[in-house]
Amino acid sequence: MKVYKIGDNILKYRFGTPFPTDAVVKAGEGIEKYSIDYFQIEEKEELKLLYKMAPKDIVFGLGENQRGINKRGGKYISFCSDDPNHTPGKRSLYGAHNFIIIDGMENFGVFIDHPGKVVFDIGFNHKDYLEITIEDKNFDLYIIKGNSPREIVSSFLNIIGEGYVPPKWAFGYQQSRWSYPDAEKVEEIADKFIENNIPCDAIYLDIDYMEDYKNFTVSEERFPNFKEFVEKMKDKGFRLIPIIDAGVKIEDGYEIYEEGVEKGYFCVNSEGKPFVAAVWPGKVHFPDFLNRESRLWFGKKYGKLIDCGIEGFWNDMNEPAIFYTNRGIEQAIEEAKNAEGKNLNIDSFFGIKDEFRNISNNIEDYKSFYHNIEGKLVNHYDVHNLYGYNMTRAADEGFKKIAPNKRFLLISRSSYIGMHRHSGIWTGDNHSWWEHILLNIKMMPSLNMCGFLYSGADTGGFSDDANGELAVRWTQFSIFTPLFRNHSAKGTRHQEPFAFDEESNSIMKEAIKLRYGLIPYIYSEYMKAIINKDIYFAPISFEYNDEYSRRVEDQLLVGDSLMISPIYEENSRGRYIWLPEDMLLWKAKDYSERKYEILEKGHRYLDIDIDEIPIFIRKNKVLVLGKHANTVDDIDNEELVVIAFVEDKASYTYYDDDGRSLDYRDGIYSKIIIEIEKREDDYQINVENHGNKDIKRLKLEIVDREGKVTKKTINI
Amino acid sequence: MKVYKIGDNILKYRFGTPFPTDAVVKAGEGIEKYSIDYFQIEEKEELKLLYKMAPKDIVFGLGENQRGINKRGGKYISFCSDDPNHTPGKRSLYGAHNFIIIDGMENFGVFIDHPGKVVFDIGFNHKDYLEITIEDKNFDLYIIKGNSPREIVSSFLNIIGEGYVPPKWAFGYQQSRWSYPDAEKVEEIADKFIENNIPCDAIYLDIDYMEDYKNFTVSEERFPNFKEFVEKMKDKGFRLIPIIDAGVKIEDGYEIYEEGVEKGYFCVNSEGKPFVAAVWPGKVHFPDFLNRESRLWFGKKYGKLIDCGIEGFWNDMNEPAIFYTNRGIEQAIEEAKNAEGKNLNIDSFFGIKDEFRNISNNIEDYKSFYHNIEGKLVNHYDVHNLYGYNMTRAADEGFKKIAPNKRFLLISRSSYIGMHRHSGIWTGDNHSWWEHILLNIKMMPSLNMCGFLYSGADTGGFSDDANGELAVRWTQFSIFTPLFRNHSAKGTRHQEPFAFDEESNSIMKEAIKLRYGLIPYIYSEYMKAIINKDIYFAPISFEYNDEYSRRVEDQLLVGDSLMISPIYEENSRGRYIWLPEDMLLWKAKDYSERKYEILEKGHRYLDIDIDEIPIFIRKNKVLVLGKHANTVDDIDNEELVVIAFVEDKASYTYYDDDGRSLDYRDGIYSKIIIEIEKREDDYQINVENHGNKDIKRLKLEIVDREGKVTKKTINI
Repeated sequence: MKVYKIGDNILKYRFGTPFPTDAVVKAGEGIEKYSIDYFQIEEKEELKLLYKMAPKDIVFGLGENQRGINKRGGKYISFCSDDPNHTPGKRSLYGAHNFIIIDGMENFGVFIDHPGKVVFDIGFNHKDYLEITIEDKNFDLYIIKGNSPREIVSSFLNIIGEGYVPPKWAFGYQQSRWSYPDAEKVEEIADKFIENNIPCDAIYLDIDYMEDYKNFTVSEERFPNFKEFVEKMKDKGFRLIPIIDAGVKIEDGYEIYEEGVEKGYFCVNSEGKPFVAAVWPGKVHFPDFLNRESRLWFGKKYGKLIDCGIEGFWNDMNEPAIFYTNRGIEQAIEEAKNAEGKNLNIDSFFGIKDEFRNISNNIEDYKSFYHNIEGKLVNHYDVHNLYGYNMTRAADEGFKKIAPNKRFLLISRSSYIGMHRHSGIWTGDNHSWWEHILLNIKMMPSLNMCGFLYSGADTGGFSDDANGELAVRWTQFSIFTPLFRNHSAKGTRHQEPFAFDEESNSIMKEAIKLRYGLIPYIYSEYMKAIINKDIYFAPISFEYNDEYSRRVEDQLLVGDSLMISPIYEENSRGRYIWLPEDMLLWKAKDYSERKYEILEKGHRYLDIDIDEIPIFIRKNKVLVLGKHANTVDDIDNEELVVIAFVEDKASYTYYDDDGRSLDYRDGIYSKIIIEIEKREDDYQINVENHGNKDIKRLKLEIVDREGKVTKKTINI
Repeated sequence: MKVYKIGDNILKYRFGTPFPTDAVVKAGEGIEKYSIDYFQIEEKEELKLLYKMAPKDIVFGLGENQRGINKRGGKYISFCSDDPNHTPGKRSLYGAHNFIIIDGMENFGVFIDHPGKVVFDIGFNHKDYLEITIEDKNFDLYIIKGNSPREIVSSFLNIIGEGYVPPKWAFGYQQSRWSYPDAEKVEEIADKFIENNIPCDAIYLDIDYMEDYKNFTVSEERFPNFKEFVEKMKDKGFRLIPIIDAGVKIEDGYEIYEEGVEKGYFCVNSEGKPFVAAVWPGKVHFPDFLNRESRLWFGKKYGKLIDCGIEGFWNDMNEPAIFYTNRGIEQAIEEAKNAEGKNLNIDSFFGIKDEFRNISNNIEDYKSFYHNIEGKLVNHYDVHNLYGYNMTRAADEGFKKIAPNKRFLLISRSSYIGMHRHSGIWTGDNHSWWEHILLNIKMMPSLNMCGFLYSGADTGGFSDDANGELAVRWTQFSIFTPLFRNHSAKGTRHQEPFAFDEESNSIMKEAIKLRYGLIPYIYSEYMKAIINKDIYFAPISFEYNDEYSRRVEDQLLVGDSLMISPIYEENSRGRYIWLPEDMLLWKAKDYSERKYEILEKGHRYLDIDIDEIPIFIRKNKVLVLGKHANTVDDIDNEELVVIAFVEDKASYTYYDDDGRSLDYRDGIYSKIIIEIEKREDDYQINVENHGNKDIKRLKLEIVDREGKVTKKTINI
């Protein structure tokens, strides 16, 4: 074991010779240290880290996973998995996010930088024990000390590098479906938005836009004159977001396949031949994204669609998902044939059934192909969790070559720590279950802690059928998630914001309009979080450390000023809320109508009608509000409503930039600093404009502790 | 359509010629009426009943189903299904309970007496519409008017007949596992209970006790000298409860098989030959339980085990579950063979996978066998929902022949309205998910409304792995369910009350002891509900009709005196509670220590530590409490603690009987009527004993509105 000092409060313990994951961007200096803080080590076939938790310790983190914001009680297995049946017993979803924070008797963060299987048993086997098991003994263990979870998260974000920023239009509403299969349908959907006057910035193209599911092709039959169509749609206000899958179809004459084989860009089997698996296109090869050359090659291919005017992509199936391999299906067919005509006993019957069920995403297949890392073959299984990350890195690196200073929308299904520098993620194939709204709520801060700020779930649920009320309540939460996308599966009920009864549709529309009104706040908070290595969604205990705040799992802090309390139960017309301090409540319906109410610190039941979205403004904090338009680009930025809950002094820094370039990285952005100080009968207001050229007026609505609203207009 | 008056407030509308289900025990008189109250009828290929709901209407009922106590928003399909994956999207579980209550603008109950598929769309397709679709147009529609849901339920229970009463020992704790495979293991488990001094009345024998899964056989290898073993275990305090499956193994020399074939007691295929399906024993025939003769024959067979001293059974796999048929497996194998060596496209691949997945419980199989109803062949599919009901009826009718006045424990997995006269039910193969504790809570009152009072879920969850905290919290709820059974599946973590860490084990033990202490109350309330055609578990809105009570989905009324608020969230140390009136709170830990607190009407957050079970006593209501023992038979009945929350006057009728016979049906039971009236500085107490010979003393603990506790002892 070697020990490195990465920062004042961060040590890296190196076990064996870890595979370089590029998760962490900061190197450190070797120091002399022979023991590990906090943990006991148990070394048998696998390596185990053991920590005894105190009864009130909370464990945060693990990004995309089941269960609570507090991960105690569960067992979680980091092994990126395409398993759409997200039941509470599942231990692996699409991502591998090996970062946790222990908050209690001791305060520290732990990151296991290892691309293979890692098991976190957080009080499952024994309620008091945290047990981390690493199958392979080559890994880096980072331990981050800090005084608070927020400080620890910030330190962690600091060593894994600055997060991905999408174009500003990607904060608009996005509509998806597997699939809108042709140009006609896509246009019909777009027209419905226009007709109903519902804001929307993007429409997704799921797998059916391609020719036989071949990456970087477009079906001429279903999408003739694609470039023109992209332009036409953009003129209507909609960007199209095509999907790209990991597998490359094996088909003679298909350029990408042929090039890949010729140049050796694909993963190989034990005989050194391109590995064959079957996914949507039928038989495919998997690009060797862990190989730099392959990555460069694949990344450039995005240019084909970018040349057609495309500005955003979603990378899918990149765990990588495997439907079947010849090995798997032959084995299963063999078993089935052996059973023919026999009076099967039940074990044999279930054996065959399982054989067919387990053909997909089979570990044996993952163990049977290799990556070429600088001339050395590395078994895929050992580095499995890096695959989706590196596909997405390939795309981002490609974009940077194609249009170095342009922001693209990019989201990926599979991920590993560090991928947040390249893209956002959506949380995969969830269900139209009320339980999955709650899971979405709980997952957001955990994802943020692992760097994934641009994230969101399939609003309305992917599998199964949504009803109007579920779509409404989910939308009312998703207006706060940076990625705000409604997506659903083939064969399920349509769930666009015009697919239900009149009342539900109209409530969804109002919620989406509110989202656009909130973009000045959401974008400003998002960008400040990126720049300051902070998070956008936080558990309320990150700011309030009282006993009740530490227990809350269904309220979130959104940026610096807001707390939300989404509804995630059917037939509900209210819910219980813990207010850790006095807050200003705005029950938003039509967002242009604002009635304020001061709620006192404490527990309470709040009536929340089906069309209401409660927004809590924290004490001495400020919400800025713009006006909606049908696209983000069309938002009129002349006037900003500034809602402040002022006990003594509140200040807000409103961030903005061009929304399209990476210039913000060079400090090219504007700020308006607003300070409001309560005087005896009035407020002293200070506004400093650092470079903002759009905003002409601030319309202040200042609410004091007694609920008195003072309105002022300030010209800039 | 013919119309019958069944009671003052009940009409039966007869469509076509319904199959006689024996769900309802009251006949009626034909009346002249040509329209249906409340509903519009839409007749196409199927028949649809349509009702427009008011926004605040609640719909109760549907027994064993997903979603809330308020069923609005969901679509439910009555078609008894062996589907262990109870995700929120599932529309059919094991039972078919076609009774609903509309509570709002109008108040009425609806029972669709039809043994085939019935679909209830309760605001799923359109939030305002209740739509009931009956595939077959031969059915009875009952409409029950009433002033309140409770009144409607009571009327319904009145027409479907008096509910099943198990022996009193069946109110004790019961331990199960698939499987304790042999006598040695069963005894080891029993000894663990004894060693740890944990009360327990029964241990279940899952399928492995049989010889090759043959009904009414016992493996001589695993359970030698079964009769002696049963006796030995009974001496230790444990009754053994063997499972009986629906299918009868096809095996030459196996008496039941041979008799059944000879006498024509099995369901037949279209050629009139016994229908063959495969379940646990491999190939089986299904007894034709809808045929009276077959039922009589099968019912008597229980005598084989009763002769060994067995006093309870669980009837399983009686949807009936079908793992496969030759038709299904041959078709799947054929598809697999056709795929051999081919470069499958993805549709073909999923086609084969689905083919294997859909072999089990396939509709085509259900459509391919027949029942012999008085010489007429009836297709199984048309009467599917009656199968489990009639298997269980066979058992009960058998018991009545073997020991006419003796109560047996009997629970069934599949069920239909009316089966509650013969047995209880357990809620099937749930999961060790926190979400399934909540589902259990919500399901209990719905089941009660459909007559199933003796019911409970697999405490701790059947599939997936429980952790200690989940087992604790689930146990803390299940102590209130009449059937209190801990059960788990092969391959999952053991979850007996000694399987976890010391703290969790000890809390589970204290909860079980409290359950035994509560048996005087639970049994008394259960029996009064049975006799008075009332329910044991009720939604709180059944008693309190304020706006908030109507919204509560996670608190229940238990009998006449108690309200409970179970914890169903991980890492929780409290929860929100709505008190519709002032109540007396006893946070039970060790049940011999009782501290009382008066909680005022309103919303509140209540701290509830991991070892606490909050019990709320309603105003002017009484809880009677006994002492625990290691079995119900061993409970010392000399003294009863009477806890009363008295504002002005409270009364309680304590019911008891011999606990073993059906004499209660002839009015042979005892009652102690306790009346407590508040006087200025004291209480006037009236106790009338009607025939109770056990109780010698009542120890009263009377709490007034101010929380003052007055203790008195009354000798009887």
